[in-house]
Amino acid sequence: MNEPVRVFAPASVSNLGPGFDILGLAIEQPGDLVEAEFSDRPGVEIVEITGEGGVLPSVAGVAAAHVLDRIMALRGEKAATPQPGAKLHLHKRMPLASGLGSSAASSVAAAIAVNELYGRPFNGRELLASAVEGERVASGSPHADNVAPCMLGGIVLVRSYEPLDVLCLPVPPDLWVVVVHPHCSIRTAEARAMVFERKYSLAECVANMGNLGAFVGALYRGDLQLVGRCISDQLVEPIRARLIPGFLAVKEAAMTARALGCSISGSGPSLFALSDTGATAKRIAAVMSDAFRTAGGVTSDVYVSRVNTEGARLVD
Amino acid sequence: MNEPVRVFAPASVSNLGPGFDILGLAIEQPGDLVEAEFSDRPGVEIVEITGEGGVLPSVAGVAAAHVLDRIMALRGEKAATPQPGAKLHLHKRMPLASGLGSSAASSVAAAIAVNELYGRPFNGRELLASAVEGERVASGSPHADNVAPCMLGGIVLVRSYEPLDVLCLPVPPDLWVVVVHPHCSIRTAEARAMVFERKYSLAECVANMGNLGAFVGALYRGDLQLVGRCISDQLVEPIRARLIPGFLAVKEAAMTARALGCSISGSGPSLFALSDTGATAKRIAAVMSDAFRTAGGVTSDVYVSRVNTEGARLVD
Repeated sequence: MNEPVRVFAPASVSNLGPGFDILGLAIEQPGDLVEAEFSDRPGVEIVEITGEGGVLPSVAGVAAAHVLDRIMALRGEKAATPQPGAKLHLHKRMPLASGLGSSAASSVAAAIAVNELYGRPFNGRELLASAVEGERVASGSPHADNVAPCMLGGIVLVRSYEPLDVLCLPVPPDLWVVVVHPHCSIRTAEARAMVFERKYSLAECVANMGNLGAFVGALYRGDLQLVGRCISDQLVEPIRARLIPGFLAVKEAAMTARALGCSISGSGPSLFALSDTGATAKRIAAVMSDAFRTAGGVTSDVYVSRVNTEGARLVD
Repeated sequence: MNEPVRVFAPASVSNLGPGFDILGLAIEQPGDLVEAEFSDRPGVEIVEITGEGGVLPSVAGVAAAHVLDRIMALRGEKAATPQPGAKLHLHKRMPLASGLGSSAASSVAAAIAVNELYGRPFNGRELLASAVEGERVASGSPHADNVAPCMLGGIVLVRSYEPLDVLCLPVPPDLWVVVVHPHCSIRTAEARAMVFERKYSLAECVANMGNLGAFVGALYRGDLQLVGRCISDQLVEPIRARLIPGFLAVKEAAMTARALGCSISGSGPSLFALSDTGATAKRIAAVMSDAFRTAGGVTSDVYVSRVNTEGARLVD
């Protein structure tokens, strides 16, 4: 029980066009690394943070503490044993406020690391609730569309939040994901407030529902053209696009370069695009990055990968 | 080309809980019967209507005329031939304003009959647009969630209306459908106005989207328990339930009798329930009908069948 545990948790793309707060997928890179070691002192102590300017991601501490609380609850009346404690080393390897599920990755990695440290009393699905607690702290809202794919891998749909009920969807093997992160930031809590303060017509809801339902069907059919047609969002993208420098030009560049679909990753400012070959995906990434520079005046990082079907994992 | 053609088009259950205007399924009975015969006089003439008190379902004429117009357009410059004409005999065998897709069945049967009469120039998917024109006249809105399953059979999702793009979903073989039609009526146009005049919070949209996406996934998995959990609607049911006498008691009776899920069929007043066995479906139908009588003070008709995977069909 005293061996340190190291966990890598990947970035994720949430919303995926029509699926605000309910769809997300994991990518290969970037990701966070969390190391947990046993501690005699009860509770969670974050002893080290590297990367991202040392900004404290308290979300990881919240998620880890939630796991420890549940371990205590499991022990129940046998609680004469010492209260569990853990020290965390958190290596942030991706930016906060980027739309890449950075806080989710920290939460997931911390939750898994502490769970492993104490003999893995919970499985991945059971740990989701703890990682969601981290998201609640990070954005004021317990959304699960980043933590679920980050924890479980693949493409995940969140059917309901009370109770938390998630569905792992099929991942077409030829599906490639491009994520382009421009060097500016959007605070998730503010971006959420923008879309929650307005109301929507039934026609707007129906448009998203049609694309969402067909997106799920397209994954089961392995129909990548249909997957692409479904990347359409009338609820959130029109509002948030204004926050992203050069949005329209970048999206147009992606579509012209034969992206299957393109929209905002999470709360932005990152955009994602889908493709059916790796070579096309790389071209799409290049033209999107160019467009961010010329139309938006911002430099950017690009990530090109297949969907990460494994999700967070132990590392040596 | 001069042989009369007879077409049966079945009732359908639309919305199916979370899928307002985008989900529907066909059932075995009831249904409408349309007979078309060749006419020297251009255009559509409805020469006979039986059933439903002789109320004129002009929708059928609109759909049939739309098909004839398209046949003319196909002929193009060769239009020295006489303009096409058809006489229709319409046998209404289900009530209008019932939530059973009655106008859709008339439209579909008329469109198919005229298409057959002229040598079947269009396939089922192509004919959808004509049947949708009938719905536009019937309710003021070109919704396709009844005409699509009525025409194509099975369970259908309407991804988008412009362009019209529909997806046939898998039908789990053990799925049974109960429809109970209380003897009162709701005008679709008015029921639509009620739900379109209000606005919805993003949280309400997200709740429906989660259930809609999972409903599609559940059909592909053949997971009937999950199908049932997804029959939940926060957008429309809370508003329309008030129009249906005894709604809450009838729904509770269905769920107590082990329905997988229960909600309003189309615009109502019919309710539908799903079940995983025929015997349970019959019990559910009986308790729903009882509850309509005792709690709503209305008698009702019940229909119990599997999903009709064939849809509208030619009959001898």
